Amino acid sequence: MLFFENDYSEGAHPEVLKRLIETNMEQAPGYGMDPYCESAKEKIRAACGCPEADVYFLVGGTQTNAVVIASILRRYEGVVAARTGHVSVHEAGAIEFTGHKVLTLPQKEGKISAEDLAGFMETFYGDETHEHMVFPGMVYISHPTEVGTLYTKKELEEISAVCRRYELPLYVDGARLGYGLVSPLADVTMEDLARLADVFYIGGTKVGALCGEAVVFTQKAPAHFMTMVKQQGALLAKGRLLGVQFDALFTDNLYEKISRNAVDTAQKLQRALEEKGYELFLKSPTNQIFVVMENRRLEELAGKVRYSFWEKRDENHTVVRFATSWATPMEDVEALIGML
Amino acid sequence: MLFFENDYSEGAHPEVLKRLIETNMEQAPGYGMDPYCESAKEKIRAACGCPEADVYFLVGGTQTNAVVIASILRRYEGVVAARTGHVSVHEAGAIEFTGHKVLTLPQKEGKISAEDLAGFMETFYGDETHEHMVFPGMVYISHPTEVGTLYTKKELEEISAVCRRYELPLYVDGARLGYGLVSPLADVTMEDLARLADVFYIGGTKVGALCGEAVVFTQKAPAHFMTMVKQQGALLAKGRLLGVQFDALFTDNLYEKISRNAVDTAQKLQRALEEKGYELFLKSPTNQIFVVMENRRLEELAGKVRYSFWEKRDENHTVVRFATSWATPMEDVEALIGML
Amino acid sequence: MLFFENDYSEGAHPEVLKRLIETNMEQAPGYGMDPYCESAKEKIRAACGCPEADVYFLVGGTQTNAVVIASILRRYEGVVAARTGHVSVHEAGAIEFTGHKVLTLPQKEGKISAEDLAGFMETFYGDETHEHMVFPGMVYISHPTEVGTLYTKKELEEISAVCRRYELPLYVDGARLGYGLVSPLADVTMEDLARLADVFYIGGTKVGALCGEAVVFTQKAPAHFMTMVKQQGALLAKGRLLGVQFDALFTDNLYEKISRNAVDTAQKLQRALEEKGYELFLKSPTNQIFVVMENRRLEELAGKVRYSFWEKRDENHTVVRFATSWATPMEDVEALIGML
Amino acid sequence: MLFFENDYSEGAHPEVLKRLIETNMEQAPGYGMDPYCESAKEKIRAACGCPEADVYFLVGGTQTNAVVIASILRRYEGVVAARTGHVSVHEAGAIEFTGHKVLTLPQKEGKISAEDLAGFMETFYGDETHEHMVFPGMVYISHPTEVGTLYTKKELEEISAVCRRYELPLYVDGARLGYGLVSPLADVTMEDLARLADVFYIGGTKVGALCGEAVVFTQKAPAHFMTMVKQQGALLAKGRLLGVQFDALFTDNLYEKISRNAVDTAQKLQRALEEKGYELFLKSPTNQIFVVMENRRLEELAGKVRYSFWEKRDENHTVVRFATSWATPMEDVEALIGML
Repeated sequence: MLFFENDYSEGAHPEVLKRLIETNMEQAPGYGMDPYCESAKEKIRAACGCPEADVYFLVGGTQTNAVVIASILRRYEGVVAARTGHVSVHEAGAIEFTGHKVLTLPQKEGKISAEDLAGFMETFYGDETHEHMVFPGMVYISHPTEVGTLYTKKELEEISAVCRRYELPLYVDGARLGYGLVSPLADVTMEDLARLADVFYIGGTKVGALCGEAVVFTQKAPAHFMTMVKQQGALLAKGRLLGVQFDALFTDNLYEKISRNAVDTAQKLQRALEEKGYELFLKSPTNQIFVVMENRRLEELAGKVRYSFWEKRDENHTVVRFATSWATPMEDVEALIGML
Repeated sequence: MLFFENDYSEGAHPEVLKRLIETNMEQAPGYGMDPYCESAKEKIRAACGCPEADVYFLVGGTQTNAVVIASILRRYEGVVAARTGHVSVHEAGAIEFTGHKVLTLPQKEGKISAEDLAGFMETFYGDETHEHMVFPGMVYISHPTEVGTLYTKKELEEISAVCRRYELPLYVDGARLGYGLVSPLADVTMEDLARLADVFYIGGTKVGALCGEAVVFTQKAPAHFMTMVKQQGALLAKGRLLGVQFDALFTDNLYEKISRNAVDTAQKLQRALEEKGYELFLKSPTNQIFVVMENRRLEELAGKVRYSFWEKRDENHTVVRFATSWATPMEDVEALIGML
Repeated sequence: MLFFENDYSEGAHPEVLKRLIETNMEQAPGYGMDPYCESAKEKIRAACGCPEADVYFLVGGTQTNAVVIASILRRYEGVVAARTGHVSVHEAGAIEFTGHKVLTLPQKEGKISAEDLAGFMETFYGDETHEHMVFPGMVYISHPTEVGTLYTKKELEEISAVCRRYELPLYVDGARLGYGLVSPLADVTMEDLARLADVFYIGGTKVGALCGEAVVFTQKAPAHFMTMVKQQGALLAKGRLLGVQFDALFTDNLYEKISRNAVDTAQKLQRALEEKGYELFLKSPTNQIFVVMENRRLEELAGKVRYSFWEKRDENHTVVRFATSWATPMEDVEALIGML
Repeated sequence: MLFFENDYSEGAHPEVLKRLIETNMEQAPGYGMDPYCESAKEKIRAACGCPEADVYFLVGGTQTNAVVIASILRRYEGVVAARTGHVSVHEAGAIEFTGHKVLTLPQKEGKISAEDLAGFMETFYGDETHEHMVFPGMVYISHPTEVGTLYTKKELEEISAVCRRYELPLYVDGARLGYGLVSPLADVTMEDLARLADVFYIGGTKVGALCGEAVVFTQKAPAHFMTMVKQQGALLAKGRLLGVQFDALFTDNLYEKISRNAVDTAQKLQRALEEKGYELFLKSPTNQIFVVMENRRLEELAGKVRYSFWEKRDENHTVVRFATSWATPMEDVEALIGML
């Protein structure tokens, strides 16, 4: 069976696992107060070119979104996101569970535009009844997006400029950030993110870790952030588990190095699909490839390949996703191409 | 100054006020356990042809929506509503504040369609990842809608049928129900509502009362509904205030009788606007009239007429709303027509 | 049947009702933007000697507590209250429903002490793990308390001093404030309250109004308070209903004048109970009288007098409450005394 | 430096780590749908003698409490717990954040009694105003408790009987369950727990795992539990991380085997403390030892031993906690004893 179902099918990258093994019996304080967390934070600050950043480690993506957003918003505010944003659609209402609305914008290939955002803000404040509405309190984007696309630096600068004009913190969900940083179309560096966003997270779960996401507040975290993390059940007693992993991922640029395999394998697959005449759902520059397949064809693949259902196209066609990761063997991609 | 800003500019209808005066010094138990509440409930059950209905009185519209919806939904569910529904847009996130998402459908003149609802449900359950999403747990519609339009009986029957197929309670916001019942296009009676909806509310604030909305659960209210009303700060100690008013409104069909004036005055205004060549935003069969006006013209009216801003049409035009009520003098409408 | 069950058995004080009648057909803007609300606010500011106060009108007591507390607290904070405080026990979890904990202190006759409060704060900040706990974010007291007792000015000054030392806003629930202001033991004026508290509310529902409570922020209300009021379903469309009533209550000192009857009748009853040898649960200086009664005796009163169950004392005795109000006829008290 | 600060200072037990290493590059489906989770669940069902149990894996203790409690309670219900229960005091208001109150009972050495619970329930339903209060909806106890004590089987049977009489689900927080199962005073087996509780969790973080807690619903989990786990940000994409670890912990009884070291080392320390004439805060049968120490003495230990502050006893004395775990070397205990 070939696995292209997602980018979290394996355990940790061997280097990460090695550090967990080496440090396993060392004794360290709990709740992220250990030296590995400290070291990892320092390395992340350096990688972001942001020596003043506040860095925290959380366990998973939905958790990170819910904790960060609910810690920043005032209670009468909501978070602005693309209609297809992960927080809008695929987190079981985690944001609403904390009392906040997701205010949606139109999207194109998973991205919002500065223009739409500015228009939304103007309409909001231009509406005389806006005090009866949810105030936009921050902006959420994902990079890469849920469909693998990337913001250009220019797009990000424009969005950031609108955010600053309206004093809206800009939050970037980087669940797959590594795969965006090493894409052939990569135009945005981690330093750019740190400069343009107010908070973003560097995804570990999908990029080499057993679990874990590193949240970077480029200015200062909200007061008593740790208490809010605890209040949402997200504070690990054995915080070292996250510190050790991110310390490894940010040693010798491992995070970016291991990301390349995901992009290389995925791009090879995408090129092959194009050459074979398949219709792409969109052209992805990262590790998730979306293609329109005949249902008949999908039945043939059953039992041989695992992929994700994306959406129904018509009676006879379905959009499916093939995802690769740091761990995907190139031979698996070649085997998959052979079957298509 | 002519008031067409809204339908809650005056106090109570004189008959309602009279009953408040007559009963003022009588002593009655609190929390809705008084004989006036009992009597009003009985009359409402009769008016709905629904002798088994559970009736409760709440104070205002947003409160009623928040209490009813948060009492019916399970915590992993959201409420399906039109993108323009009052709960989606104009209640400051009251639904999200209780932890629930508003799942939006497209709308046409403020109405959703059975077809779109069925499509939404099929897509939801057809999506293999739907367990990662907010489950649709009930449906909210308003009748009349926020823009004064009405569902036909056929439309309502179709929506109700989809709801029953998916076991989705159907909730109808009747903030302006009276004005819908007596419209020249009225096709839906209170008995129809009781038959097709699982819960609806009969608006008092906008139809003759000082305050108050009557919630009708056509089957049975959720267990411990009163405790949940209290939990949301919506339980009146002096519940008689609502009971006395609704008892008056449902004596000798007062509720519908007084509604007619609103519709008559509004329709007269709408006809006049059409005759004068104004562009209507849409054609309304009830008490709210929406018209496109030149900004210049609006400036002339300033200080003479109060109306509501609805939305910006273009640089030089604005959509405004004129609302009438049970209390609007026909002379005021004539005076307004004279100015336009 | 004699009614001593509560202090909200009748409608409005005749003067209040008169103003509602007189203004009934006037047209006024909604949402508290009407001239009656403005006038009432001005009069309340004057009565408090607090010209800069922000005044808002809400509908009922639990609602007011939930809205004020949830608008002031940060999300990691709770409200400190007496174990017997209304918000702790009798509001169906309205505070918790908004996501906040009620942190309880011991009480004596319904009152907390500055000493216990200071001790609580010291213990909290002295605990090295306090970042894993709910931060105390404000203090709630009721005056009169739930059992009719009153804070002395000295007690209130001490509590206020502790609050200011720890930057804890002090909130006073004045559901029955009028009855506290005119008690023979009254030591605290409305001006004292405005000086010592950060926010308090002046109860209308139990003191002459059909409904309504006036919230006084002695400094400034939280930003976007109106939106939060709406978000909790507490914003009245026909806000004039509250404005007109409070305008009447604060004209010619009506609020205090009508409060006297409640205290006079209650104190007469309490003296009679003492003279007849009944054991008082506590000695109340206001309008609620608590007495230990034999269950046998209570059975005899059934069908003749309505009172409230307070708590079970032992197998044969029960603590009951007799409440009076601005509306209680002295003859009713005399009739009750005759029966006891 | 000697570490007795807590029971989560090290990584994973070597056997657990070994299985993570062995399975690291295997590909498995996400969200707990992998074969390791399945296998672990089967072994846990067997260990509980409860073949029908629904087992889920979550990441940490506070998270597990918040998810389980908020998934079971109806919105008008609270959870009954000891005043000192972890959910009452040390979870930063995680339960209240989900909208629910913690209803507290008196405790003795961290335990509640069936008698107090029954009394609480009788008082609640005997109170005529209980519909204005938070309904008790489930019971939370910890075993071992926060101070290391254990319920006897008889105590647990009595509490369970009260719970069943009132249809209150009984939930047992087993963050340190292993250490309770192998205590010299252990009287309750995992099978007893499965018989007497409705849901409990088997702590992994403190007993050999990197992270992870196994929730056992002895009947059936609440409908759509997984969606609620996701909604609270607690669903791991790489669920195998938990499955592999619990599969190892429940192979060849590893969970209990490794627990013994914690109890042996702690009990040795406790005996030594007694022999040296120290005053114990209470006598603990498990892995946490509480002792009253002179502050002077604590200063001497600074820099040599890490322990936890528990509470201030008086000006000169402090209660401190020494915790051991599966990983504590006996030599460390001997070294500590030597210093005391």
